[in-house]
Amino acid sequence: MGTMKLHGHPISPAVRRVAACLEEKGLPYEFVFVDLSTGQQKKEPFISLNPFGQVPALEDGDLKLFESRAITQYITRTYADKGTPLLPTDPLKQTMVSVWSEVESHAFDAAASKLSFEILIKPILGMSTDEGAVEVQQGKLAQVLDVYESRLGKSKYLGGEDFSLADLHHLPIINNLLGTKIKALFDARPHVSAWCADILARPAWQKVLASMNMKLSS
Amino acid sequence: MGTMKLHGHPISPAVRRVAACLEEKGLPYEFVFVDLSTGQQKKEPFISLNPFGQVPALEDGDLKLFESRAITQYITRTYADKGTPLLPTDPLKQTMVSVWSEVESHAFDAAASKLSFEILIKPILGMSTDEGAVEVQQGKLAQVLDVYESRLGKSKYLGGEDFSLADLHHLPIINNLLGTKIKALFDARPHVSAWCADILARPAWQKVLASMNMKLSS
Repeated sequence: MGTMKLHGHPISPAVRRVAACLEEKGLPYEFVFVDLSTGQQKKEPFISLNPFGQVPALEDGDLKLFESRAITQYITRTYADKGTPLLPTDPLKQTMVSVWSEVESHAFDAAASKLSFEILIKPILGMSTDEGAVEVQQGKLAQVLDVYESRLGKSKYLGGEDFSLADLHHLPIINNLLGTKIKALFDARPHVSAWCADILARPAWQKVLASMNMKLSS
Repeated sequence: MGTMKLHGHPISPAVRRVAACLEEKGLPYEFVFVDLSTGQQKKEPFISLNPFGQVPALEDGDLKLFESRAITQYITRTYADKGTPLLPTDPLKQTMVSVWSEVESHAFDAAASKLSFEILIKPILGMSTDEGAVEVQQGKLAQVLDVYESRLGKSKYLGGEDFSLADLHHLPIINNLLGTKIKALFDARPHVSAWCADILARPAWQKVLASMNMKLSS
């Protein structure tokens, strides 16, 4: 197979999630820019890659995939022998990664993505932040982070003792929120705070930030 | 290992999702009633099974799991040789099931669960349905079902030619919505409509309905 193609916009958390997985695996990829400002994601040829018209999409040879968390699973399982494992080989340990991946996908993301949207994205789009919504979602995120604080007091990472997809999936939104007042929620919880510092410092994630920020400013 | 224990309330779609998986696999299980009306799910001993205080939780021997879609994956992989396969063995086919499972978990569930809550659950709780929210979510669900209609015109099931977790995860909410005015959205799309009839008629799902309805009325 040739080089994989990652279709997306550099500001999208879901696109950055897939890029983080590719960098952890040390896999080269071509970034194909999808211009969200002109609605390119809702038109051909992109709509043939993802009928829902949302970034990202991945092409690996003839295979066309969408949904960021399905893509990271595909990359992790297909290129199991490259770079960081990201999934334990032991089935029981894999199950715990699966449980905490679902937690990210539902409990965490529901609150955290809304906060990121209200505080960071809306001002960019010229819309005003709904402070009531921020307060509600902040309360929900605090409850989720209380559970994380307890979990991370018992195991080094969410899915177990090793960094895995369950942690990686959090990176783009945590990175966004730590640049806002929501940072206080993370700072107030020492295990959560140490975990964030640890996963954000990973060289693969730093490479994603550098390359996506370069794409944004060019 | 002894008989598995499924902790939950019989009205919960997430609990029914796990029950459907257990029935497809032909695995016996003990149902442990969690009384949501008194907040049992937020207290010990349940909170030790799921720190988020939400049903379901599954116990299989010493293993304690939560998050319905992680539980169905666990059951499917651990008891691969029992009952309906639910996941293809071919990695590429498995990837497609994973993509469409993510679609259910995000695109479909986001709209469909809110509709089920507004139209079915709120009246039970003595709250009034927000018709504005219903209209917004109906529009979103229609868009999702348009993509399903196209997909199901090309493959018999969402994940491919065989019934899989990607279909099974939809059962509880589709079953709920077909008893409401939202049924019209499904009826208007022939492939979607045939798919619903097919998956709802599965003996395993019929067993879940019979046993959960019995528990509700007792």
